Amino acid sequence: MTLLDGKKTAQALQQELAEEVKLLQAAGDKTPHLVAVLVGNDGASESYVAGKVQDCENVGFQSTLIRLPATTTEAELLAQIEALNNDSSVDGFIVQLPLPKHIDAEKVTQAISPAKDVDGFHPVSVGRMAKGLPTFISATPFGILKLLEKYDINLTGKHAVVLGRSQIVGSPMSILLARNAPVGNCTVTLCHSKTPDISKHTLQADIIVVALGIPEFLKADMVREGAIVIDVGITRVADDTKKSGFRLVGDVDFESVAPKCAYITPVPGGVGPMTRVALLYNTLLASKK
Amino acid sequence: MTLLDGKKTAQALQQELAEEVKLLQAAGDKTPHLVAVLVGNDGASESYVAGKVQDCENVGFQSTLIRLPATTTEAELLAQIEALNNDSSVDGFIVQLPLPKHIDAEKVTQAISPAKDVDGFHPVSVGRMAKGLPTFISATPFGILKLLEKYDINLTGKHAVVLGRSQIVGSPMSILLARNAPVGNCTVTLCHSKTPDISKHTLQADIIVVALGIPEFLKADMVREGAIVIDVGITRVADDTKKSGFRLVGDVDFESVAPKCAYITPVPGGVGPMTRVALLYNTLLASKK
Repeated sequence: MTLLDGKKTAQALQQELAEEVKLLQAAGDKTPHLVAVLVGNDGASESYVAGKVQDCENVGFQSTLIRLPATTTEAELLAQIEALNNDSSVDGFIVQLPLPKHIDAEKVTQAISPAKDVDGFHPVSVGRMAKGLPTFISATPFGILKLLEKYDINLTGKHAVVLGRSQIVGSPMSILLARNAPVGNCTVTLCHSKTPDISKHTLQADIIVVALGIPEFLKADMVREGAIVIDVGITRVADDTKKSGFRLVGDVDFESVAPKCAYITPVPGGVGPMTRVALLYNTLLASKK
Repeated sequence: MTLLDGKKTAQALQQELAEEVKLLQAAGDKTPHLVAVLVGNDGASESYVAGKVQDCENVGFQSTLIRLPATTTEAELLAQIEALNNDSSVDGFIVQLPLPKHIDAEKVTQAISPAKDVDGFHPVSVGRMAKGLPTFISATPFGILKLLEKYDINLTGKHAVVLGRSQIVGSPMSILLARNAPVGNCTVTLCHSKTPDISKHTLQADIIVVALGIPEFLKADMVREGAIVIDVGITRVADDTKKSGFRLVGDVDFESVAPKCAYITPVPGGVGPMTRVALLYNTLLASKK
């Protein structure tokens, strides 16, 4: 069993990015600039956004955090987005989700200029991805592709089974793995909440991407020997033995599944860090446009 | 075995559309207007476009055929598209593919205003479809959904296997069948040219959509008893016994496969007429916007 070490891989990629920033700066080119917009004070969102700002610092990108109160109106947020769309100093920006309930997240997503849509959630980005055109691929699927690429795993002709059809992970992952591309060319099965017997599918899989948000959903008896398992889930589970009072648990029952796998991602330290570094790649791409 | 009669279903839907046009006109609303742009003299394209114009006439839509010579430059075609985008008398328009080789078809597709993109090929249309937002769904997948809907086939939890990952049929079909929607909620497997053993997948399928463009690819021993088979292929095969010198053959070996099926589409008279009527629905939708 080989651990797909997202943390180590992301660190190596951050170093590559830092080198590239130095080259850009030496050539007199612009330093990539990411802006994150945070509305309200959601605890998880706070820490995600802080992580993104920290990542930018690590690689030498410019970053700006715009904090707006939870009482911000939709119109005010849309005006902020319009300003960022028109600000040539900003290469890419994200509006951290979830948003307060009085704001239509889809409307906000569609207000972002596709040229600066480093989260890859705009219909133009999703459509270009589905059509196989160059675009911003949303960070989690993009990070997973980069991880598989770094470990030099040949996917052509493999049977991939994706669990979960979310717009952010499962659905784009199923599209990307089926594409005629170096990290792609899989036969892909997409399972979800309406799939009657998920085991039937996972037991046939060469590679399983689990993105259901159900802690320890994938058990050893659902996986065949030699499978590749990518765990996208990350849930806080109460744990009195931890100082923090909780531990992070993935969608895979790691202890029992790992021994059967050819490759597996840990949680934490697997997909999470790759997601973060993928956003940096999108920001670099935006700055080169 | 029940035949999924696309011809009869499309005729019934054309009647419904004709009624709706009359209601629109009685209410003083605009008559839907479809424009087809045909560049050059490709034989198959000529007949496809003629069919689309005929369909408009059948249901009382206004239609306009714009013929451009094969020597039309890309710039000239783009100027024509811009004019159609700005012409408020035009609800929707299509540029018949394939285009002469000196014209970039993707560039042309992206020049069409998403509001008039009744072929549903623009990245905005594809992205909105993938995100589950209301949009123009490209005609063949849309027609197949309508056919399944008309025969009241409940797909929830069914295992659909789609053969072929084309941008026009296979790829969108796989996305649509997996959606959380009345005609959807399937577990979906997408197979393609890099899939090593297609039979392994089709033998497990409750519903098979074949869109490979390989005449009579799907044989009886690849299908389980009680399957639903949708044949998207249509190829001209030489046949001396026919006056025309050819016959139309689907991707399914109909004679041997049909007896095993719960439902199957014939070729011709299955997906083809549904594709045509789907374009009319998109035109109606465009005219209502």
